[in-house]
Amino acid sequence: MSHSPLIDELITAFKCLPGVGAKSAQRMTFNLLERNRGGALKLSQALHNAMEHINNCEQCRTFTEAQLCNLCNNPSRAESQQICIVESPQDVLAIEQTSQFKGTYFVLMGHLSPIDGIGPNEIGLDILAQRLQQDKIEEVILATNPTVEGEATAHYISQMCKKHSIRTTRIAHGVPVGGELEYIDGNTLTHAFSGRREF
Amino acid sequence: MSHSPLIDELITAFKCLPGVGAKSAQRMTFNLLERNRGGALKLSQALHNAMEHINNCEQCRTFTEAQLCNLCNNPSRAESQQICIVESPQDVLAIEQTSQFKGTYFVLMGHLSPIDGIGPNEIGLDILAQRLQQDKIEEVILATNPTVEGEATAHYISQMCKKHSIRTTRIAHGVPVGGELEYIDGNTLTHAFSGRREF
Ligand SMILES: [Zn+2]
Ligand SMILES: [Zn+2]
Repeated sequence: MSHSPLIDELITAFKCLPGVGAKSAQRMTFNLLERNRGGALKLSQALHNAMEHINNCEQCRTFTEAQLCNLCNNPSRAESQQICIVESPQDVLAIEQTSQFKGTYFVLMGHLSPIDGIGPNEIGLDILAQRLQQDKIEEVILATNPTVEGEATAHYISQMCKKHSIRTTRIAHGVPVGGELEYIDGNTLTHAFSGRREF
Repeated sequence: MSHSPLIDELITAFKCLPGVGAKSAQRMTFNLLERNRGGALKLSQALHNAMEHINNCEQCRTFTEAQLCNLCNNPSRAESQQICIVESPQDVLAIEQTSQFKGTYFVLMGHLSPIDGIGPNEIGLDILAQRLQQDKIEEVILATNPTVEGEATAHYISQMCKKHSIRTTRIAHGVPVGGELEYIDGNTLTHAFSGRREF
């Protein structure tokens, strides 16, 4: 209770942000009021623009304000005839930062989770099936997360690809580069051993 | 670089919040896009309303969308004839939560800091001087922070009060209730010793 309805509304509204509780929300509110009203108005406008205009790319489902995202719109990307399947738009950002992959993406916006009612159509696999049929694709790279749901989703998609005789690969899981063995969880170590190669 | 200008703008805009760096800004952006567009639009509106409509109370300078804040507008508050001087609106909230103080406030929105060009008028002491002259005031409670600047500001205001023969008091500083001596800083311990009372 700040004795100002507008301040109380702003403090409450800030709590919709991940990791922001009552105390941080109050600090953000007063900090902006005292020191950065211009920045706050820019944030207000940017929130409005993003929420109203950002939809999903018609081809890869990642977030974009256009019909097709920049990557799908780039003809040299399609030439590679590789599609990388990821769970979220942030995964696309992370992979793009490595500059290793030159193909296109397909973003599931989640993973299969039957108990939550999330089946193949909910993660866009109907759209992916069309691409597998229509586009010239040499390889589908499965980069879903190494979780139970991510693995199940990867498995499901690999079965879809088999019907179209498209090669599927799974990104390697193991000890992170620079990681110390003693701090790595058992699951990762199991992956690292089963995925070992000649030295 | 998210390959979407609107997403990049929102990530940049989030960095105006205290304690929010590049990684948190990205997490907030995608979290809202994926899960809470309604909450994001409410936040956008709340930011706009607060920044456009919140000004300073004409009497105590705290933030309010009205000419006078709720506390100044409450006649029973003025009856107490006590004014508590604090540095920020958050200090008002903290004191109000104790329900101990029943008077009115004066919010400096800072403290004297000559090297930063912040003199008496910048912290509203001209307005306070008017109140000391016009209103019936029995006691001014100095609740500025126990910092060098807070102490200097308290001293300056106590001199102003002296001219009007108004009693001034300073809130007590010492070991916080529940605090353990070994974790208290030296300055606080010094205050605690010099402020000791008969047991
Ligand atoms: Zn796309
Ligand atoms: Zn007021």
